[in-house]
Amino acid sequence: MKNFILLNENAVYFEASFSCDNVLFLSLSGDNYFITDARYTTEAKEFTKNCEVIESSNLIKTAQEILIKNKIKKIVFDPNDFKYSTYVKLSENIKTTLIPKENFSKLKRIIKTDEEVKILKKAAKLGREGFKDLAKFIRKNGFKQSEQYLFFKGIEKMSQSGKLDLSFDPIIAINENAAKPHALPTSKKLRKDDLILVDAGVKYKRYCSDRTCVTSANFEKLTFKREQKFKNKKHQKIYDLVYKAQLNAIEKARVGMKASQIDALTRTVIEKAGYADKFIHSTGHGVGLDIHEFPNINAKSDVIIEDNMVFTIEPGIYLPKEFGVRIEDTVVMKNGKAVIL
Amino acid sequence: MKNFILLNENAVYFEASFSCDNVLFLSLSGDNYFITDARYTTEAKEFTKNCEVIESSNLIKTAQEILIKNKIKKIVFDPNDFKYSTYVKLSENIKTTLIPKENFSKLKRIIKTDEEVKILKKAAKLGREGFKDLAKFIRKNGFKQSEQYLFFKGIEKMSQSGKLDLSFDPIIAINENAAKPHALPTSKKLRKDDLILVDAGVKYKRYCSDRTCVTSANFEKLTFKREQKFKNKKHQKIYDLVYKAQLNAIEKARVGMKASQIDALTRTVIEKAGYADKFIHSTGHGVGLDIHEFPNINAKSDVIIEDNMVFTIEPGIYLPKEFGVRIEDTVVMKNGKAVIL
Repeated sequence: MKNFILLNENAVYFEASFSCDNVLFLSLSGDNYFITDARYTTEAKEFTKNCEVIESSNLIKTAQEILIKNKIKKIVFDPNDFKYSTYVKLSENIKTTLIPKENFSKLKRIIKTDEEVKILKKAAKLGREGFKDLAKFIRKNGFKQSEQYLFFKGIEKMSQSGKLDLSFDPIIAINENAAKPHALPTSKKLRKDDLILVDAGVKYKRYCSDRTCVTSANFEKLTFKREQKFKNKKHQKIYDLVYKAQLNAIEKARVGMKASQIDALTRTVIEKAGYADKFIHSTGHGVGLDIHEFPNINAKSDVIIEDNMVFTIEPGIYLPKEFGVRIEDTVVMKNGKAVIL
Repeated sequence: MKNFILLNENAVYFEASFSCDNVLFLSLSGDNYFITDARYTTEAKEFTKNCEVIESSNLIKTAQEILIKNKIKKIVFDPNDFKYSTYVKLSENIKTTLIPKENFSKLKRIIKTDEEVKILKKAAKLGREGFKDLAKFIRKNGFKQSEQYLFFKGIEKMSQSGKLDLSFDPIIAINENAAKPHALPTSKKLRKDDLILVDAGVKYKRYCSDRTCVTSANFEKLTFKREQKFKNKKHQKIYDLVYKAQLNAIEKARVGMKASQIDALTRTVIEKAGYADKFIHSTGHGVGLDIHEFPNINAKSDVIIEDNMVFTIEPGIYLPKEFGVRIEDTVVMKNGKAVIL
């Protein structure tokens, strides 16, 4: 791609090694322009790589001037990253044709460099530490606390009291709330032997971790390890089934497979047990600067899996008004196989 | 406006008394359609007012079918709320002309109902309680804590440990960091007699509170009251000046003025004292379902101020590498005058 324009903060970070919340990035035959306002130019000049930093109070106008000066005929943009109003303003009164290309930046980022994998590993490690701290808190003080309070404590423990950014607002759901894949925390209180689902992640150097654990409110032994014991037999049965499905995919995923084949590795296990209609989402998604990147691991994706792709494997079974189980780990493809980060 | 379409969650809430993060709202000559996916239809049917709730796995396609069936020729949308890709998909293969009208929903919401004012008052009260709890925490345990930790504690106290949503991520900045209007928390630690700036707000029934206080790290007496004593004379001088500017606007703001005249009420006080170039933003902004609504209180706005408008008055002086002071309260216009919420 000769010429492209970016507005998305993470997409810009990938190109420039720095980003901020008001930037327009232009790449014209390899010449890069980082256009931002006065609040950010000092840091941009220090931290960007291979960019000319331009200070402007009107990023779009400045971009238009550069496009006109360089007589640019065509430039690619991502229609998902542009508001309609931005598109209109940018294309007004210039001769450059704006060519929409969905997700072109994310597609560039589908295979991680070794350096990125290292950072993602560190993010995963920090995420695991947060889960451990949260488990410790629940063991000691979680009894009779509301989901809202546990949600708040989840933010505290995962972020190390504000030191780390979170990949997303954590999900902390008890019993029937765990049956909703995107549960919001309620005033429902945690009782002994309840099922608890926690989906959370942190960022390290802007790269995300992502993990979901399910456990039982056993206030002596509660951990977020992958092997779990439940007093409630149905909890145990469903947990073991989802775990088996996830393990099957982690063990059998290979470079050269289509993403849809990895999806099938979890789905067929759940289907055979008669819960096909209770696994209501795809098996996983890529993880990187964005929490949702490529490859998508779903039944329709023909993407061929390669080494250094990083994605989640997260089958789930959701029994409305009862409970839900999702087990999610982020894996990297290494030497042809999946390794949990 | 006969026909309009909304995607913004708050704009939809204003029309339908309910909203969710995946909704397309159509209003056709007063007939309202709330189109959402299976996750939200049960609640939407329970809580929306004057709407037909339609379940769909493809909101845009469903909207197109309704537009075609009703032979709609023109429909208004907000180009700031639409991604370019959404605009393209919606306008494909239909005969309806999409008419861009920036901020039409926010403009409708510029004068609050008495009911909305009541809710905003309650939000402001809850916000003040958060500030009090945070002050108490800093008095007891704030000494030598980092901005990052104080930021985290700010979230805890403002949100009542997760019970309330926040209007935005709080700003907690010490000394020279307070000289940046949008400071991010650092590892810098709080010492005795430091200047601390806190900008924070909470939501009540989706309506926002917004307030900024500046105080001195005096661990016996620290409060976020409007009258403040600083040991550092320059802190005191600048604080008193910004306070005077803010008070001038609150006391003299009247219904019938232009917004620019209210801006002048703070700005002239600061200008006369020789700090014109250190007051680098506008005097305020409307507050409601969104944290930034109309009216804008700036030097260019010709909007005539009316009863039941709700907006912030927040002059500031920013001395780079030294410190900054901003004092912000949210006011409602009542019986012709401004009253702090």
